[in-house]
Amino acid sequence: MLVVMKKDAKEAHITNLLTHVQTFHCRGHLSQRRINTVIGVVGEKASIEQSCLESLEGVERVEALSGPFKLSSRAFKQEDTEFSIDGARIGGKQIILMAGPCAVESRAQLLQAALAVKKAGAVALRGGAFKPRTSPYSFQGLGEEGLRILAEARDVAGLAIVTEVVAPEQVPLVMQYADVLQVGARNMQNYALLNAVGDSHKPVLLKRGLSSTIEEFLNAAEYILSRNNPRVILCERGIRTFETSTRNTLDINAIPVLKSLSHLPVVVDPSHGTGKREYVAAVSRAAIAAGADGLIVEVHPDPDHALSDGAQSLRPEEFMRLVKELRPVAEAVGRTL
Amino acid sequence: MLVVMKKDAKEAHITNLLTHVQTFHCRGHLSQRRINTVIGVVGEKASIEQSCLESLEGVERVEALSGPFKLSSRAFKQEDTEFSIDGARIGGKQIILMAGPCAVESRAQLLQAALAVKKAGAVALRGGAFKPRTSPYSFQGLGEEGLRILAEARDVAGLAIVTEVVAPEQVPLVMQYADVLQVGARNMQNYALLNAVGDSHKPVLLKRGLSSTIEEFLNAAEYILSRNNPRVILCERGIRTFETSTRNTLDINAIPVLKSLSHLPVVVDPSHGTGKREYVAAVSRAAIAAGADGLIVEVHPDPDHALSDGAQSLRPEEFMRLVKELRPVAEAVGRTL
Amino acid sequence: MLVVMKKDAKEAHITNLLTHVQTFHCRGHLSQRRINTVIGVVGEKASIEQSCLESLEGVERVEALSGPFKLSSRAFKQEDTEFSIDGARIGGKQIILMAGPCAVESRAQLLQAALAVKKAGAVALRGGAFKPRTSPYSFQGLGEEGLRILAEARDVAGLAIVTEVVAPEQVPLVMQYADVLQVGARNMQNYALLNAVGDSHKPVLLKRGLSSTIEEFLNAAEYILSRNNPRVILCERGIRTFETSTRNTLDINAIPVLKSLSHLPVVVDPSHGTGKREYVAAVSRAAIAAGADGLIVEVHPDPDHALSDGAQSLRPEEFMRLVKELRPVAEAVGRTL
Amino acid sequence: MLVVMKKDAKEAHITNLLTHVQTFHCRGHLSQRRINTVIGVVGEKASIEQSCLESLEGVERVEALSGPFKLSSRAFKQEDTEFSIDGARIGGKQIILMAGPCAVESRAQLLQAALAVKKAGAVALRGGAFKPRTSPYSFQGLGEEGLRILAEARDVAGLAIVTEVVAPEQVPLVMQYADVLQVGARNMQNYALLNAVGDSHKPVLLKRGLSSTIEEFLNAAEYILSRNNPRVILCERGIRTFETSTRNTLDINAIPVLKSLSHLPVVVDPSHGTGKREYVAAVSRAAIAAGADGLIVEVHPDPDHALSDGAQSLRPEEFMRLVKELRPVAEAVGRTL
Repeated sequence: MLVVMKKDAKEAHITNLLTHVQTFHCRGHLSQRRINTVIGVVGEKASIEQSCLESLEGVERVEALSGPFKLSSRAFKQEDTEFSIDGARIGGKQIILMAGPCAVESRAQLLQAALAVKKAGAVALRGGAFKPRTSPYSFQGLGEEGLRILAEARDVAGLAIVTEVVAPEQVPLVMQYADVLQVGARNMQNYALLNAVGDSHKPVLLKRGLSSTIEEFLNAAEYILSRNNPRVILCERGIRTFETSTRNTLDINAIPVLKSLSHLPVVVDPSHGTGKREYVAAVSRAAIAAGADGLIVEVHPDPDHALSDGAQSLRPEEFMRLVKELRPVAEAVGRTL
Repeated sequence: MLVVMKKDAKEAHITNLLTHVQTFHCRGHLSQRRINTVIGVVGEKASIEQSCLESLEGVERVEALSGPFKLSSRAFKQEDTEFSIDGARIGGKQIILMAGPCAVESRAQLLQAALAVKKAGAVALRGGAFKPRTSPYSFQGLGEEGLRILAEARDVAGLAIVTEVVAPEQVPLVMQYADVLQVGARNMQNYALLNAVGDSHKPVLLKRGLSSTIEEFLNAAEYILSRNNPRVILCERGIRTFETSTRNTLDINAIPVLKSLSHLPVVVDPSHGTGKREYVAAVSRAAIAAGADGLIVEVHPDPDHALSDGAQSLRPEEFMRLVKELRPVAEAVGRTL
Repeated sequence: MLVVMKKDAKEAHITNLLTHVQTFHCRGHLSQRRINTVIGVVGEKASIEQSCLESLEGVERVEALSGPFKLSSRAFKQEDTEFSIDGARIGGKQIILMAGPCAVESRAQLLQAALAVKKAGAVALRGGAFKPRTSPYSFQGLGEEGLRILAEARDVAGLAIVTEVVAPEQVPLVMQYADVLQVGARNMQNYALLNAVGDSHKPVLLKRGLSSTIEEFLNAAEYILSRNNPRVILCERGIRTFETSTRNTLDINAIPVLKSLSHLPVVVDPSHGTGKREYVAAVSRAAIAAGADGLIVEVHPDPDHALSDGAQSLRPEEFMRLVKELRPVAEAVGRTL
Repeated sequence: MLVVMKKDAKEAHITNLLTHVQTFHCRGHLSQRRINTVIGVVGEKASIEQSCLESLEGVERVEALSGPFKLSSRAFKQEDTEFSIDGARIGGKQIILMAGPCAVESRAQLLQAALAVKKAGAVALRGGAFKPRTSPYSFQGLGEEGLRILAEARDVAGLAIVTEVVAPEQVPLVMQYADVLQVGARNMQNYALLNAVGDSHKPVLLKRGLSSTIEEFLNAAEYILSRNNPRVILCERGIRTFETSTRNTLDINAIPVLKSLSHLPVVVDPSHGTGKREYVAAVSRAAIAAGADGLIVEVHPDPDHALSDGAQSLRPEEFMRLVKELRPVAEAVGRTL
């Protein structure tokens, strides 16, 4: 439900409304529009209380928030969501690059990767310390040691850190080291984890599940937003199809669809989206041209000896070349990079 | 790696071998064959230590356990795995029926369902107290109150309880009430949860992910088995395809494929597999004919007013009719029900 | 549009109505119900002429035939369609078996296969003379020579012949030899071909396209029916999914869905549906249990040297064993085989 | 098999080789490389005759043409294939635009569309006279009258004509009017049709099947090339997935994959690829950025009253705006438009 406040509504009216909303076990979420404030009211009993809310002072009208997702929708918030990650703005004119290895393998590997991607123009370093792996016998990441190496790389290279969290109870630990908490594709519908990263109030990079519809994807974002954490980045990373010449099928349509349905920033992972290094550049250009707000790219100093995802990781010089190729494309669509 | 012991190997040889395996941070899992014992050795360094193990007393030979999954494979254990759930045997000649509502909604609803499915021949009652829902604003289950109602239904109707656990930290609570811990389709690759249900040593009903390959499915089972919990039931519940006339596409092929690759019992969920009540009977018969060891069926005393999954839930009298239809099919394939 | 005639409508009334229908370039299709006749009227202008038809003598009422398919729907014809293929009835209580090699490779191979499948209980021999192949450089079948061999096998073994036709201009030739014209999965939406087999008035075995929805499948059947050829057999043969452990995913749900939406007989191809010989028996049992009216199974006297589809072809003795396994399943669901 | 001729091989050597190739029922296809000629030899017995060919005069060496497709592969022809469509070059630096309505509905509609797309910069007019439709009761196109209108539009607007052919026997008729024969997605594996358009020696626009792998797509092209028709344009038009917010999922990965495996020009259909007008621009920019050689876009003077595909058709002014948006993107990737 969307409570549209009057132009001249006072702070006290809004506070009063939010108090009312709590009495029937719902939550109110503010969104500032050009001329007035709107309040998204969500919860099981939201629709029942409509007439009660309409009669409160300062309220202009109450509208249904139709559609399955509420706070992530354009209906709730018309302007693009824009926020900072350790200084870099995402969601605005600037396209941001996040890059780094699939997994933190060693201090030497990560620092080398960090310096290389920084030099090429990345603002954030990706790298997994906790790796969800299909087989229990595969390398599962360095754990907290990996987090400490990431923190060192941040200081050395001057990059924000994006790293995955795989269980609710890990959130407090990972938060100490990370600037952005990543929720991986396999965990997109791990609701306990979504709630935990929501409560953390850290920026969250939410990857689309391998076979999740866009509606399910936005509903997963809704879990985080409904915990009063508005800083969610949506990441299209390829979906599962019958095609076997690539690891996944990057859903390029998802970019305009997400931009049309939601105000949240959208980034693309061309590495998982294709699974093969040789296709990463073409698909990265396409993502920028289609309106993505950023890319998250796997870069490894020595892909042939990577412990995971070597085939889809760019070498540092390939990443530098890619960034040069992307700049004119960004400009062609009115963005900077 | 598979260590095949000599026919006349002594208890002490096996103990000695298991001690050795621990020294290089691997785990040993015993499987009793007709004439000797085999020990599955899994862990990162397993293959390196082959020659060391070959020289131990009582060891006949060491074989590679090829393929991505180990302890769940037929190579490791040739005989079908069979175990008890609160008295009922699964994995043997007897086909078992688990039935009940999607969610525990109230004491009255659950007791009514429990008595009805018991009367029809079910040995276990399904019902969710913690419900993973696509939208954060949908009914999420009664929580611990739901578990208490399930426990009461167990006593009243004499049924084992199958209920879902959605986060690792919930496992200790749910274990107190449940006979079988269910891991839902959305959590099939929630590895923290798989480890937690593995450590619980409770029987686990593992549902196949919506778009998981059979290889990924068996790898998820492998997470549980590798924690020394051998009582895993695999549940085929339909996969996501382009077809829209049913909610999912039940993968009937998965039954013989799983039976061929693995020794674990396989049950089928015809309710999620079709999403429509009217198709449940036909697909249930098919599952039994194809070799399933059991069914888990949604039954609700009043599907038209169910809080979730009403369209795919059978009425009690429909379930009773279904059981009658299934008996001759079970007999036709040499099973009992 | 469905014109329901009065109980006491006379032959002349029906003739008159059909004449009227032709004047506005539609077609009328008769369906005899227990107490009266109904006439399906299809064509672009059908709905416009409703009031005109309502006023004709002998007409009780005119109903819309809603849904995308008309003549293939249960709304048009409530009773199961049943017809003969060279003496054998399909669509009734009896389950029929069609079997034989993927392709006619030689006289010796085909006659051997024919005698074997006849002995096991098949009523029809399948075998391709014109083979649609993914690559232009693969074996494309023996052509008319293959048809002549099929005709000889029919005489020798006493089996109906089911063989594929791949282009409209081939229909007159293939009709001379075949009892049932097969339209393959790749040609399910080859509308020129559908029209041609419709005009042939021969029974047609229509295979579901690899990624066709059930709605598209029934619409393809509708092309044939709308040419006044009511003898269409629907064949579920597996759909394309992400799963790679089988060649296709047999859509077992399709059986009750097709039976619910349409009156046409449904057969299942477990050979293409799985792609692996070892899974054919389990899936065949499932198909019968789910309500299929027949099976079409690949059987080859020497699968290891087959020119196509060897991996999914049963050996004659395996087919004989399968038939024995199927009989009790057929009986369990009230059918004979 | 690839026969690499010596640098100084004479015309007579090549002629002699081609004659030899014919004697064993294979075909030879010439490809001129910078310093020498190579001849692709395809046919069932190609590999058997390798040693015979190696010994012929002028032959340097004989190589296997590995992989499932031969003449369409980069191994056979390293340079991009480039050819003219009624004056416009496709496959080179210039990106070409083909645009127009889904179906020819009337003279007025088509001429209006033609003039509009010409003005915006299109070089070819698309429009269907024979429409393959899912239902036999939908509008199937104007037939030959539609072709005559297309021919008139060509003269009036100065555009090449791209139109679909749906059956082999139609090819002679459609050839008289069309500059490019289109094979639709549903007919991608209609091999009789592929052979017929191959024999026509007209340029062919081959659309990828809804669920065809890239390997199957190139094999379909191979059918046409193997008939000595080298002028094939590959068209990615979206594949079928589980996602329902768009009509199809445009496979952007397919562009670099096709460019890497094959020398043929690749165009993209953003209209079918998304199914919704509002997403066409974003996806068109992405296609150009990813390396497409052209676009084929649905443009209709009055989409709200279109007889088919209205929801995905651009209005003339929207198409004009799109072309302006595409120019800087084309330049950003070193192309012109």
